Amino acid sequence: MAQKPSLPQGTRDFGPLVVQRRKYILNTIERIFKKYGFMPLETPSMEQLSTLTGKYGDEGDQLLFKILNSGDYFKKLIEHQEKSLAHENVDVTFLPALDSKISSLDSKKSLPFISEKGLRYDLTVPFARYVVMNRNDITLPFKRYQMQPVWRADKPQKGRYREFWQCDADVVGSNSLVNEAELLKIYDEVFSELNVPVSIKINNRKLLSALATAVNASDKFSAITVAIDKLDKIGMDGVKVELEKAGLIASQIETISTFLNPPMDKNMIEHIESIIGKNEEGVLGIEELKKVITFTNTLKLKNEFVIDLTLARGLSYYTGAIVEVQANAGSLKSSIGGGGRYDNLTGIFGLPGISGVGISFGLDRIYDVMEELKLFPENLKANDTKILFCYFDEETQQRALELCALVRENNIPAEVYPDICKKIGKQLEYANKLQIPYACIIGSNEMQQEKYNLKNLTSGEQTEVNAQQLTQLI
Amino acid sequence: MAQKPSLPQGTRDFGPLVVQRRKYILNTIERIFKKYGFMPLETPSMEQLSTLTGKYGDEGDQLLFKILNSGDYFKKLIEHQEKSLAHENVDVTFLPALDSKISSLDSKKSLPFISEKGLRYDLTVPFARYVVMNRNDITLPFKRYQMQPVWRADKPQKGRYREFWQCDADVVGSNSLVNEAELLKIYDEVFSELNVPVSIKINNRKLLSALATAVNASDKFSAITVAIDKLDKIGMDGVKVELEKAGLIASQIETISTFLNPPMDKNMIEHIESIIGKNEEGVLGIEELKKVITFTNTLKLKNEFVIDLTLARGLSYYTGAIVEVQANAGSLKSSIGGGGRYDNLTGIFGLPGISGVGISFGLDRIYDVMEELKLFPENLKANDTKILFCYFDEETQQRALELCALVRENNIPAEVYPDICKKIGKQLEYANKLQIPYACIIGSNEMQQEKYNLKNLTSGEQTEVNAQQLTQLI
Repeated sequence: MAQKPSLPQGTRDFGPLVVQRRKYILNTIERIFKKYGFMPLETPSMEQLSTLTGKYGDEGDQLLFKILNSGDYFKKLIEHQEKSLAHENVDVTFLPALDSKISSLDSKKSLPFISEKGLRYDLTVPFARYVVMNRNDITLPFKRYQMQPVWRADKPQKGRYREFWQCDADVVGSNSLVNEAELLKIYDEVFSELNVPVSIKINNRKLLSALATAVNASDKFSAITVAIDKLDKIGMDGVKVELEKAGLIASQIETISTFLNPPMDKNMIEHIESIIGKNEEGVLGIEELKKVITFTNTLKLKNEFVIDLTLARGLSYYTGAIVEVQANAGSLKSSIGGGGRYDNLTGIFGLPGISGVGISFGLDRIYDVMEELKLFPENLKANDTKILFCYFDEETQQRALELCALVRENNIPAEVYPDICKKIGKQLEYANKLQIPYACIIGSNEMQQEKYNLKNLTSGEQTEVNAQQLTQLI
Repeated sequence: MAQKPSLPQGTRDFGPLVVQRRKYILNTIERIFKKYGFMPLETPSMEQLSTLTGKYGDEGDQLLFKILNSGDYFKKLIEHQEKSLAHENVDVTFLPALDSKISSLDSKKSLPFISEKGLRYDLTVPFARYVVMNRNDITLPFKRYQMQPVWRADKPQKGRYREFWQCDADVVGSNSLVNEAELLKIYDEVFSELNVPVSIKINNRKLLSALATAVNASDKFSAITVAIDKLDKIGMDGVKVELEKAGLIASQIETISTFLNPPMDKNMIEHIESIIGKNEEGVLGIEELKKVITFTNTLKLKNEFVIDLTLARGLSYYTGAIVEVQANAGSLKSSIGGGGRYDNLTGIFGLPGISGVGISFGLDRIYDVMEELKLFPENLKANDTKILFCYFDEETQQRALELCALVRENNIPAEVYPDICKKIGKQLEYANKLQIPYACIIGSNEMQQEKYNLKNLTSGEQTEVNAQQLTQLI
């Protein structure tokens, strides 16, 4: 019984040419990561749910892909329930009673009994977990890069997929702002090499925290950050509504709005100082911002590099510099990279006092931008094959195999048309469709004289060659 | 509240040196795949459960990792139940009634309502699905390679992980046995390059099918295959017990046992012919085997290449040649590669008549063998950094950044010690631990004279250099 196959929503197959193009981006990023001294790390696709939950905010928790426990998961749920009932001191109210009806089942409360693992949501939390678990074997500062897929059960739309690749570089165990500057330079260098024109935006979470303090709303820092983070989508009026909902009054909202709209003719640092220059965290944030800019100037960025006070970043673990990269051409307006400093991510796992900073490249969005702008090198092909050997019967097939082996011994990618096929046209059509540049046609005459017909499939030119010349010509 | 992090059972982190070594294996395999004309493909980690189930046998189905549906999965289960009840013509007996107790829940029956997706179990079934879904855009024969992780909820043990990588090469749309021979040659070439001594074993499912016919037990072909597949683990006596359990009588079992134990002094093909040479499928299987051996002889394998009549392969989709590779040294006895021909895998998805053949490399097992035999090149390091710039204060830090940028411009991987640190010893210790071969120490004198101290950390030798010489020397 044949079934019509399909793909899960938000996931994609990558055919040969697409893989080659994705690898072109990945290789460029990896080469530059290595040039800056970063070392590779790979972590499992699955993590314990306890590692993942609570790190990405409420929305993030909901977007985690959870893996069903093996075996009879309901049995485990029921057994646990029975065990809990046997020990009456255990609180069992979080589960519907065994004798209650199936229609009373609660997905959230029973989750721990049917799922313990989830798919990686980003590369930063697994990295923090790795650092904590391997603290005794790691030399600090530890510079690692990681290029792997992550999964989010988000609603698929343009530039948003349920399986997508992140390419991260992080430094942990160093407070130096030199790291921030070098990471910004990595962004600059990668996008310059890929010919993607970008804006590199920087801000500092301490400025946002100081802003909350300046309007006497330190307790609402998180809500203010979340509201500002939505600016791109909902506009300033929308942000104001969100702030009002969070309990801020008009004068507070006004100050925040003024902060987010620096006047064009005023020096940016002066603007920031005028609003938050009086509180301690503000002074610290301004100092960090200035220092990162000084270091970055030494490293001479080629792309646009701007302070963007409206930059907030969604993830909750950032504490210092935050950065984001946007393409300056094409229709994709969402960021194609982002990152920042986190002072206490390893602390969650029991190892406090290790500050880290990192950046991430969104491979799939970079791909989409480059495809739209036609930025992939033209010589990238689905295959590397240089020559196809064509023949007519069993005898010439044997010779084709021998000659092909000879060419491959010289590390030249080559193919033999596998099936015996009297029609030479069909064999050449295969070569043409795959854009293989040469074909070598072996008939019985050619075989006896040990002279073969080498055809350049682009120019149509034909040359008679012996086995040795064959390898030299292609 | 700090939590002690852990990894899901059967999964692993790969630190920098391990990743470099894994990439060494992957790059070797990939280069040779390309040399033989194979093109890259990548499929999503998740597939619809309908794509995966029923393709790997009952045991395989149980080992699939299933992903919990997003949102309120129990609600969906309950809603569906209610809908079914509303349409009384629908069979609802497969679910416990809504008014039944939670303790009657059945994991297997309710699965379709809480999970629709699963993690990739191998690369062959997703490939077959891809071919069917992209049939109009693919040129046949289609030669693709795929190197990605797969997941199986198996009991972890030596050489068996829950997340592991497969590296596959398959040809679909060609019946030619040249493909079998070329794939065997790829095995031979990869393991020769990796210096792993191997036995490449070949058999043919048609011989096993003919054997079942020869003992008048065609209907028990599958059970016979499963029993023979266990030979390594349970020995011939165990296989005999299994065959008895499957309903075979002593004389049948005797013939099978004789087939599986060819006498040392007898020609192998003659031995096979003597038992199954009289039935049609036997003749076909022998012919295929002979032809593959002839083609393979033309391609000149370097490793041991043997017919192994006890080779059965676990997966049920094979119909012709089957192959397996075993390391000839080290303690890992299980296979490090395997494959075979499948005549109708795309047929399951509605596209019959496309035969395929493929091989798979087990990256993780190859890694384990190479580690045990110490086969990794000694020059493989955790990082590529050639030089570390050391300094003492803000002024010299600035110069360190400039010099490091200069070195990197020449595509030499380099690092600046990120934090200002008066102790040069600490900075050099970092370089030593990371096996960075050179350090450049910048004091204020050196800075003024624009002459720097370049130290070879292996020999201890120190040279005074200017900026230009710096790049040339390393």
